[in-house]
Amino acid sequence: MSSRWATLATSLTAEDIADAILSQDSQFDSPVLQVVSEAHAKGYETLSLPLTNENWRKRWSDMCLLSVDATDSEKEEASKKAEAWRSRPVFMRDEVTISRLDEAEGIIAMVSEWLELDSPDDGIRHDAEIALRQELAYASYLNIQAAILPPPRNRDYVASYARIINSCLNSTPYITLSVRLPIYNPSVFQPTSPESAFSSPNRKTNRSSPATPALVVSESSPDRPHNSETSLNATWEMWDLIRSMCDYNTRLTLTLDLSPALPSTLGVLSKWAAESVRYIFLPASTFIANMKGYPHRPIILLADANTGRHRRGGESGYSQYVRHLEKTSPPVLAAQKPGTVENFAQGYQDYLQAPLQPLMDNLPSATYHTFEQDPIKYSQYEEAMLRAFHDKPAGQEIVVCIAGAGRGPLVARCLKALERAHREATVFAIEKNPNAYVTLQYRQANEWGTKVQLIFGDMRAIEVPEKADILVSELLGSFGDNELSPECLDGAMRFLKPNGISIPSSYTAHLAPLSSSKLYNEARSSKNDKSLETPYVVMFQNVNVLSGTKASADGIPLTNTHNTRSAKLRFYIPHAGVLHGLAGYFEAVLYGNIGLSIHPQRKDQISKDMLSWFPLFFPFKEPLYLPSGSELQVSIWRLTTEKQVWYEWHAESFLSVPQTNSSNEDLLLSPYGVHAPLFPGGAPPSPMADREDPFLLDSQPRRSATLPTSATPGALAKELEFELVKIGHTSLHNPGGRSSWIGL
Amino acid sequence: MSSRWATLATSLTAEDIADAILSQDSQFDSPVLQVVSEAHAKGYETLSLPLTNENWRKRWSDMCLLSVDATDSEKEEASKKAEAWRSRPVFMRDEVTISRLDEAEGIIAMVSEWLELDSPDDGIRHDAEIALRQELAYASYLNIQAAILPPPRNRDYVASYARIINSCLNSTPYITLSVRLPIYNPSVFQPTSPESAFSSPNRKTNRSSPATPALVVSESSPDRPHNSETSLNATWEMWDLIRSMCDYNTRLTLTLDLSPALPSTLGVLSKWAAESVRYIFLPASTFIANMKGYPHRPIILLADANTGRHRRGGESGYSQYVRHLEKTSPPVLAAQKPGTVENFAQGYQDYLQAPLQPLMDNLPSATYHTFEQDPIKYSQYEEAMLRAFHDKPAGQEIVVCIAGAGRGPLVARCLKALERAHREATVFAIEKNPNAYVTLQYRQANEWGTKVQLIFGDMRAIEVPEKADILVSELLGSFGDNELSPECLDGAMRFLKPNGISIPSSYTAHLAPLSSSKLYNEARSSKNDKSLETPYVVMFQNVNVLSGTKASADGIPLTNTHNTRSAKLRFYIPHAGVLHGLAGYFEAVLYGNIGLSIHPQRKDQISKDMLSWFPLFFPFKEPLYLPSGSELQVSIWRLTTEKQVWYEWHAESFLSVPQTNSSNEDLLLSPYGVHAPLFPGGAPPSPMADREDPFLLDSQPRRSATLPTSATPGALAKELEFELVKIGHTSLHNPGGRSSWIGL
Repeated sequence: MSSRWATLATSLTAEDIADAILSQDSQFDSPVLQVVSEAHAKGYETLSLPLTNENWRKRWSDMCLLSVDATDSEKEEASKKAEAWRSRPVFMRDEVTISRLDEAEGIIAMVSEWLELDSPDDGIRHDAEIALRQELAYASYLNIQAAILPPPRNRDYVASYARIINSCLNSTPYITLSVRLPIYNPSVFQPTSPESAFSSPNRKTNRSSPATPALVVSESSPDRPHNSETSLNATWEMWDLIRSMCDYNTRLTLTLDLSPALPSTLGVLSKWAAESVRYIFLPASTFIANMKGYPHRPIILLADANTGRHRRGGESGYSQYVRHLEKTSPPVLAAQKPGTVENFAQGYQDYLQAPLQPLMDNLPSATYHTFEQDPIKYSQYEEAMLRAFHDKPAGQEIVVCIAGAGRGPLVARCLKALERAHREATVFAIEKNPNAYVTLQYRQANEWGTKVQLIFGDMRAIEVPEKADILVSELLGSFGDNELSPECLDGAMRFLKPNGISIPSSYTAHLAPLSSSKLYNEARSSKNDKSLETPYVVMFQNVNVLSGTKASADGIPLTNTHNTRSAKLRFYIPHAGVLHGLAGYFEAVLYGNIGLSIHPQRKDQISKDMLSWFPLFFPFKEPLYLPSGSELQVSIWRLTTEKQVWYEWHAESFLSVPQTNSSNEDLLLSPYGVHAPLFPGGAPPSPMADREDPFLLDSQPRRSATLPTSATPGALAKELEFELVKIGHTSLHNPGGRSSWIGL
Repeated sequence: MSSRWATLATSLTAEDIADAILSQDSQFDSPVLQVVSEAHAKGYETLSLPLTNENWRKRWSDMCLLSVDATDSEKEEASKKAEAWRSRPVFMRDEVTISRLDEAEGIIAMVSEWLELDSPDDGIRHDAEIALRQELAYASYLNIQAAILPPPRNRDYVASYARIINSCLNSTPYITLSVRLPIYNPSVFQPTSPESAFSSPNRKTNRSSPATPALVVSESSPDRPHNSETSLNATWEMWDLIRSMCDYNTRLTLTLDLSPALPSTLGVLSKWAAESVRYIFLPASTFIANMKGYPHRPIILLADANTGRHRRGGESGYSQYVRHLEKTSPPVLAAQKPGTVENFAQGYQDYLQAPLQPLMDNLPSATYHTFEQDPIKYSQYEEAMLRAFHDKPAGQEIVVCIAGAGRGPLVARCLKALERAHREATVFAIEKNPNAYVTLQYRQANEWGTKVQLIFGDMRAIEVPEKADILVSELLGSFGDNELSPECLDGAMRFLKPNGISIPSSYTAHLAPLSSSKLYNEARSSKNDKSLETPYVVMFQNVNVLSGTKASADGIPLTNTHNTRSAKLRFYIPHAGVLHGLAGYFEAVLYGNIGLSIHPQRKDQISKDMLSWFPLFFPFKEPLYLPSGSELQVSIWRLTTEKQVWYEWHAESFLSVPQTNSSNEDLLLSPYGVHAPLFPGGAPPSPMADREDPFLLDSQPRRSATLPTSATPGALAKELEFELVKIGHTSLHNPGGRSSWIGL
């Protein structure tokens, strides 16, 4: 089972139970136990069942939804029944599908689909909330651990839906709630006209049928076009609002309903990868072509598998095909292949680690051992040294200085490269860790002999007998300079001859904006309240890089990394998302065209399968919402005192909107709170008003004569001019290095 | 002095001190003491002086800004000097204007104007930061309490400016820093071409003159049109970013520079009213027509008053005119007039008070006494009762029930109205506060006699001997129902005859979005970490109502208050601002056209000079940035259990942007992190792929054939369609009443 990423389940209906009642096998104590047993026999590991049936739906509707042509006495009777129910909500035996503990074991409860927690009608919403609490209380009584909620359907009232879910999470302590949502709004392609006939104001509604209404993106703009990026984002935007209003509660998950045909834009799919998807709802009528390695090892709920929709494959064909796709999914294949980063990193995905501080702390031998396992990094160094040796005039003796030799891997590679190049060299190996220095002495005695001279001490303080032709170091962190490579090399550069070679010869840090509810929750779950202002080392998995490669109007590059110690970067955000942090990468040129890279787009070309570095994650304390088509501007500073180095970071968001000319409209109208006239009491003449200097004019509204009127063609043309409007920002993170710094 | 709202100061220059040196009077110990004494003699209460002079500017420039045609040895020498200065920053005696404690007493220090803390050049910024720290350290040494900083000038690097200011605030513990800013960018009307000749990369810059450059709104769009709302907002937006990045530090204030001609739009002015303005910089070359009651009692810095610009008034004319405007300012006049809310509320402006809980707590007599002073409220009640009595058939005896009689003001007004109407009535007075009930007994015995029957007890529980024709109550809170008026009246309605009259007959709650850095800081300064989720009673003063009266495209009303217990409201935001909370108001119809209102736009028509209620303030934990032209949607719920009532609130922001059709661009390009192809491994045929049911097609990109090409006129027309795009939201406030509730 451990080779499987997803759990397979079947989604059964009240009809399936009704069928079991008709055809009950006497070997089972109850029809529910029979359908459970049959599902397991078909290979499903678990199953979902609705908690209630049509009887409950009918009773609730009769009480809570009144027909407009009901008589007064009918209304009064229904109202009395409803009040009695509201004060003590209780099910009748024949209104629920499950009534025994053994029936409920391991079941996923489907909450009544027809509950409208986001109805625009206050009364319906109120009674739906009571009914939801009643179902969840009953599910808890039966020890059910997980319930799937009906989807929100009305963008205008999804805040009410979210408020109710948040309230239920807080009042129901153990159960996990999952919000069912289609990956996008299918009505995008076929606009529906939602029923919305509310009788009000007596908070009772006449509705021909309380059937699941189609999703309403916004009631206020019924004629809004439906094929835009915004519409494609509509369901994700609702999810984002719900989980934010529930304060990223870890008992709130997502059931991704793949019923709608998959959209053609990857952005719509990839954003879900960063969310806490617990269930994937997969009706037989649709298909999933790529599951992207099953985010968060979800449970796949196969629905309608027994309806005979696809005859050739039979009922078991669906689960076989899902397993086939799973086996052939690239992330699963990569994780199974030894030597890949995916295989090496198992168990470390989306796991926050504190960055190493090798300058301040002396690393233990086991840490050196782990990093020495990297199959790529040291062969890149060997290759770089080899080429550098070739570039030195033949016959000239070479002085090599290895600054930070650790347990000696670079020394060994250096000797190998010298051998391959048929060159001789004096090799100095400097190391400040007294423990590693013992290992170096051991290797010198046993392997290297006099070819290598060991020097014990901090490279910033010691002296080397000879200036070096080639200075080799491996001080790079995930973000390049975050393990103090610049400060150490500043101290070591004096060992190098004026035209000597430094390996690495240069390196660059890269940033990308990231969305990941898991990393956000991990970072803030720490007891330490500074935990959201500290960079972490993370092997990213369920994250979504928010920036796109499409340049915005004025040619903004994807990343615009500077070599200085501060940078201001601009990112184009093609698809709406929530910024939770920044991913930090580095790329180094060792020598010539030999390099090291963990940049996601270039690492495979430059140093494929290198394991030594996971990226850095700079979290943000407050998630920042980024709409589709927005621009993100990130500032990052690398700061230093005499004793420490730290990063501070900050982000601002902008949106390009048509430029509107400022007019004097708000002079004529009166937004309240601003009643004071420009000239109180008719402005007495100034005691200083010289004739030749009428400076009071400066305070007159001067531009009213030149304001454009919107009817002129010029004004119309103006409407097409765009400008970048600020829409949000984060706070300044880690000011003064108060949360995290690196010791010098 | 207490009648004055503002302090008058003069802003002196290094030249003024140089003049004093030339014309030194022997009675003064130093030229600085002479100019200080002269300023006081002219009636100024304080003065500002630059800390440094041209000598320092020259030395700094010579060290830190290198000419491109400097020789190598000149460069090296300057570089050495700069390094020495950076490691130990120190002034020479002739580089500073002040050097003695007595000279510095009460002085406002002007930090060197030419420091470019937001230069795009890393080196200049770095050296400007060192110079700023040097000046602040020197000012602190001289016990100077306040320093005014040079303005930010470059929108693209204002984050760097803010980071430096934040760092200085944290490292300089006592001094108050004030950011000087023009009220808007004057270059809006006359675009300038900023000099930006940086030599780099050796971090030294050749600049013909380090003179104050013009403000650059954005380097990246030099040809951006300059008369838009965004441009008018540019300086406020910079201020907002700075104070946010400094985490609303209370030692950071604003010096509003009124040098630019006042703009014609009130929105540009009114937003500054909500900010912590400490100084108003007022050069003689300009004029201020309306100071709006001097927000925060600022210090007005008169500059260039001695340059003889306006001959007739002479130097003292400026200060006389400012004092004249002060005296005639409507808020000042109102505060001086007894009986006005402004007079009554002195000392309570922008002061947070916990709302009363008269149901749970028995009010003390002094509280009743305060509220009984209201000159308007009880006469409105008397008038309403009078009209209700007139509307009852003559000769018919009337039963009046006063629910919640307190110390008896409504009883007294009822008897007076009966007298005026020449009617008889049985008056029942119900009161649950045992202490107030003693006062009622006293008044019954001494004033009212048998005309009034007292009933002790909670109106929800007691019985009244007769049903009433008229039920009178005064249970309203600032937000209408926030003192549990509905719940109490639910219990009292049974005393009323079926067609009886309730006074009040109805009431409505109103909300408006509010910006106020002071209220935000007050609310979060409380030790209680729930303090930002609790409503407060506040007499608003330095606040800015963000919503405008201009309806947005689809006719959104200013407030759309429902009579239900939840509401979703939409507000149009004409000018960019920061949402810090919601203002809550109520309006009640007592009877007929007699009412009570604290609604800012209607209170003067309905119940002018009524004192009993200040508005309610619902704070938000995180300030929400709202751009110009955006839409704010606010949800508020009034929720209840059997034991308590509470409000929850939440806000979302939207911006209308042109609709862009979702295209397959991001299928063709590859935003990194999303490398997996749609069909991994070439998608093997499904085991269920029946010929007549090719459901695999569902996962194909289906819309590529119908995508519009941008060259067609149709696609161009589409660009003009707008849609509301979500740009931000707050968290859900006070969920479950965890921070504040009202006891039933």
